[in-house]
Amino acid sequence: MPDTHHPPAIILVSPQMGENIGAAARAMGNFGLSELRIVSPRDGWPNPAAEAMAAHALPIVQAARVFTSLSNAVADCQQVYATSARLRDMQKPVVTAREFSSPHPSQPLASPTSPSGRGLKTAILFGRESSGLSNEELAYAHTLLTIPVNPACPSINLAQAVNIVAYEWFQAQSDAATQLTESPELTTHIPAPMEEFEGFLRQLEAHLDAINFWKVAEKKPKMRQNLRHLFLRAQPSSSEVQTLRGIVSSFSQKKP
Amino acid sequence: MPDTHHPPAIILVSPQMGENIGAAARAMGNFGLSELRIVSPRDGWPNPAAEAMAAHALPIVQAARVFTSLSNAVADCQQVYATSARLRDMQKPVVTAREFSSPHPSQPLASPTSPSGRGLKTAILFGRESSGLSNEELAYAHTLLTIPVNPACPSINLAQAVNIVAYEWFQAQSDAATQLTESPELTTHIPAPMEEFEGFLRQLEAHLDAINFWKVAEKKPKMRQNLRHLFLRAQPSSSEVQTLRGIVSSFSQKKP
Repeated sequence: MPDTHHPPAIILVSPQMGENIGAAARAMGNFGLSELRIVSPRDGWPNPAAEAMAAHALPIVQAARVFTSLSNAVADCQQVYATSARLRDMQKPVVTAREFSSPHPSQPLASPTSPSGRGLKTAILFGRESSGLSNEELAYAHTLLTIPVNPACPSINLAQAVNIVAYEWFQAQSDAATQLTESPELTTHIPAPMEEFEGFLRQLEAHLDAINFWKVAEKKPKMRQNLRHLFLRAQPSSSEVQTLRGIVSSFSQKKP
Repeated sequence: MPDTHHPPAIILVSPQMGENIGAAARAMGNFGLSELRIVSPRDGWPNPAAEAMAAHALPIVQAARVFTSLSNAVADCQQVYATSARLRDMQKPVVTAREFSSPHPSQPLASPTSPSGRGLKTAILFGRESSGLSNEELAYAHTLLTIPVNPACPSINLAQAVNIVAYEWFQAQSDAATQLTESPELTTHIPAPMEEFEGFLRQLEAHLDAINFWKVAEKKPKMRQNLRHLFLRAQPSSSEVQTLRGIVSSFSQKKP
């Protein structure tokens, strides 16, 4: 389980579309964030479009706190990050979404680029869809947070930007919390013991011999080896080996 | 600049909402992907809602190819990943979105968890909003791709799932480019395109039908799926597919 002691607050500054607010909340829920703050939403509050898009994260939308100024919205925060694509001429440190979540261990805890939420109340600002954050709004942030994008197509949807940042935060929490998350994968597939596997190969080759499959005798060793590689890669289980044997037996016994 | 020689194709299987198709395309554009394929979109095609949501990625929507079957949509692909939250009882390897993009260097190039797109035509399947991919659809994939989420709120919006996968892909490409890592050609094994693979499976099944292999009719669908899993794991090359076809043909023509 991720450490959710101090997850960052997501602050949407003057969001325009309720759908984006709802989609942002849904992404927050997917990735373990729950504290949504909204500064001066264009269409007022509550917003039915936001609630409709939130899906199972509806409680996050319903618990959102609405502020009339960014100043009030960040009042209790100790660390403020501002998402921005415009990084020039800013006298601020810049981190990527990944660096925000997984800072270098040597960084001091209280620096602006320290891990969000390990003891410090942290907020991440996201600007309006049309124009992002103003310079005045960016000035509230200690650090700029940027998402590396294809420069030919740099404009990220508001909810998708929240999605990426929340995703990175959750992955970092999960990594830190447990390396011991046992992966469920592959546990159900158990390759057969080699003796069963070899038994199938011998059976297959015997039948191929019987029908004179190898036509050119010199090619047989290479073809046998290729067949072995092929079936080795599949790593058939015991029951799969039985199925393969069944197929070979059926073919050799019956003529269509 | 990221290496965009072989970016994966994004395949949306029976998407329901045009808005999600458009938002997925926008996310693709942000992160350097451009090849969108759509299987049986619920609301037909073209879809004005998709175009409206695509923003600057409109060309991706306009260039999308629409298919009437998943089989056709993956026909030219050599590696197929299926996004899924349901990982149990699947006889397939599982990778996270991050592992998909940044596999362990020791993995051979042609393994199911090898880097997407270093020379292999790769597709990533995303299921319908309501219910994801069916078991039959999952059966087309070599590997499952999962996005770790908060278990209390696991349902990810379709476009946000595409967003995460595209984001991870782009970050990995950027990292690789900045490190100037030329990854050497690690293998000569190149999986056959799916249409050749499917051709072999159809031939095998036709012959198994002809010899009444399935004895108990109710078991046939499950057995067919198991055979598919088994051979998918092997990822046979084109010449191996030819060998397998040759074996089936020989068996069906000659009696020992």
